Amino acid sequence: MTTWSRLGEKSKREVRLARAFLAAVAEPPAPALAGFVARHGPCRSVELVQRGKAPPDVLSEVEARFAHVSAEQLLAATEAAGARLVVPEEPEWPSSAFQDLAGGREVGLPEVAEPIALWVRGREDLATALDPAIAVVGARAASGYGEHVAAEFGHGLARAGFTVVSGAAYGIDGAAHRGALAAGGRTVAFLACGVDVDYPAGHGRLLRAVAHQGAVVSEYPPGTEPRKHRFLVRNRLIAAAGRATVVVEAGARSGATNTAGTADALGRPVLAVPGPVTSKNSVGCHGMLRSGKAVLVTSTAEVLEAVSPIGVPAPVEDVGEQRRTDRLGPHAQRLHDSLRGMDGASAEELARDCGLPLGEVRALLPELELSGFAVRTERGWSVAAR
Amino acid sequence: MTTWSRLGEKSKREVRLARAFLAAVAEPPAPALAGFVARHGPCRSVELVQRGKAPPDVLSEVEARFAHVSAEQLLAATEAAGARLVVPEEPEWPSSAFQDLAGGREVGLPEVAEPIALWVRGREDLATALDPAIAVVGARAASGYGEHVAAEFGHGLARAGFTVVSGAAYGIDGAAHRGALAAGGRTVAFLACGVDVDYPAGHGRLLRAVAHQGAVVSEYPPGTEPRKHRFLVRNRLIAAAGRATVVVEAGARSGATNTAGTADALGRPVLAVPGPVTSKNSVGCHGMLRSGKAVLVTSTAEVLEAVSPIGVPAPVEDVGEQRRTDRLGPHAQRLHDSLRGMDGASAEELARDCGLPLGEVRALLPELELSGFAVRTERGWSVAAR
Repeated sequence: MTTWSRLGEKSKREVRLARAFLAAVAEPPAPALAGFVARHGPCRSVELVQRGKAPPDVLSEVEARFAHVSAEQLLAATEAAGARLVVPEEPEWPSSAFQDLAGGREVGLPEVAEPIALWVRGREDLATALDPAIAVVGARAASGYGEHVAAEFGHGLARAGFTVVSGAAYGIDGAAHRGALAAGGRTVAFLACGVDVDYPAGHGRLLRAVAHQGAVVSEYPPGTEPRKHRFLVRNRLIAAAGRATVVVEAGARSGATNTAGTADALGRPVLAVPGPVTSKNSVGCHGMLRSGKAVLVTSTAEVLEAVSPIGVPAPVEDVGEQRRTDRLGPHAQRLHDSLRGMDGASAEELARDCGLPLGEVRALLPELELSGFAVRTERGWSVAAR
Repeated sequence: MTTWSRLGEKSKREVRLARAFLAAVAEPPAPALAGFVARHGPCRSVELVQRGKAPPDVLSEVEARFAHVSAEQLLAATEAAGARLVVPEEPEWPSSAFQDLAGGREVGLPEVAEPIALWVRGREDLATALDPAIAVVGARAASGYGEHVAAEFGHGLARAGFTVVSGAAYGIDGAAHRGALAAGGRTVAFLACGVDVDYPAGHGRLLRAVAHQGAVVSEYPPGTEPRKHRFLVRNRLIAAAGRATVVVEAGARSGATNTAGTADALGRPVLAVPGPVTSKNSVGCHGMLRSGKAVLVTSTAEVLEAVSPIGVPAPVEDVGEQRRTDRLGPHAQRLHDSLRGMDGASAEELARDCGLPLGEVRALLPELELSGFAVRTERGWSVAAR
């Protein structure tokens, strides 16, 4: 890939044309075609495919669309959509994010393959935009609680310098993107349709804002409509792009648990936000936490801790409100408890109440008096007013 | 202890008098005295203590109250309070619950000792009432969510035949007791004051109901007032009495985390209920879950699973609503997705859309038609109306 800058414009265009054709001719993920292209390169692969000289599994993947794809028309449509095609040969390709997908078979993900090319809407260099990134995903039918947390996490991660990757769906995804946008940070949406298709329909404005502050990305050519299975296929790109995947809310059967499973298989930490056990929206998160597939996180700081165990300042442990009596030793605390319960008592009475030896009580009382915890009056010892 | 039934009434009374004296003369936990009593027996221990022939650490524990405790008066006060004294020598003593406390030093709990005797209000035999038991604890300042879950758990565990053990405090404790009572089940309250002291004041009626359907228990003599440190000391009895401890809600600094820590040290499972990350009341639970000190539970069934991994029917995994298309294979689902997106299409158009080979599409379409997923019309193939 280091030779890209030395290629002439004509050669670069040839690679793009070949990749556009290959990306469009098979329905992703196309593991046979992806492996074939990795072996032969894009231009030679197109030639072999067009002459029918590819293995049967490759030909089976391309057969249905083979005669209907025009690479020239694809690139024209890409330009018309205000998008560009990013290919693995160029420096903009986020190879560190996607290289693990090529080894999908080895990690138990037979249907996972690296994308052949990506369509991108957005000014920012894609490799830069995804480094570093964290995926924040969850249910479409989210609760107000879930959307609140997703927005908080999106905001916090963006402020910490992480790009927030998600899927632009209603619910958790949208809230995560919006949180990052509100923080003035970067956010990237991976779509299950063409980058020129406003899906969901109500998120057209959000998608434009995401393109403006990051990128809208898809492995589907412009004009491709969303299909149910494409959401699951797209999820692997979200899982691979993030250094970790945070699931904010997920029902028992949610696409987010699929993204989490892929992230886990790819060796990325899976983090899940808990919620009320009375909420259907948290059943998926709690299931992942119970099975040990996810680590519980309650804040942005805990997400950051999971992705960079060193180099991040240890979060201040929330030990709750400090009490004034914390600095007293256990016996002095016990005596202080008795003082609070008895108004005007002798040392003997206090010793009986707290069960400490009289000598120790006699030694502790002046200490408590000096440090402002006890007062001596005519009626005896009492707790000092604060 | 098997000799208890053979003891005459006079000897039994002597043991009770000795235990009452020893339980009252030192502020619990009194590890030195407890060890001394275990070695010499209660009657000989009283004799040695009264003659000043005990080791200094024992004498230091009893010094302050030594001259002020009357065992006869204690037993009279016990009877007057409608309570009884239960001692380790008799079969009613819940030895399986408390035997681990004697080894507190070995498990890193130096301040833990077994109780010397227990005052009990309630008709039921204590050993029976605590077998089997589960502790349900949590914050006093609980949320409505927390109280709801505590009541549900109390109810569910009682219905499953477990005694619900808790501390009778406001908030989670009270809700757990009430849930068990509502289920007509058994519940036991361990108090940080005498069994005749209504604490908290608003729980007098609840305590009477608990005594009626289980027991109100304390290692403090009748009339003992609650003191702050006594709540922490009492917590060890709750942790030891339960086969597991469930923390429903706990702030960052909560007595419930202390109970959980003791349960963990005693080798009992610690279970924590998650909640909204936006709630201060769940900070303690989430902390325990993050550190691995607790296992996440969302239902009574999951609690039962933790205490009896075998012998409990495996809970039905909630996989969410089954969809009609679940029985289709992945390629048939892909084709069905395309049918849903295209109204009236040829096999060729469908193949291009879903990317499957035309031959496969032609084979799948009649199958989908037969199984009611697709219809063939004059305009071509469409998805079948449900």
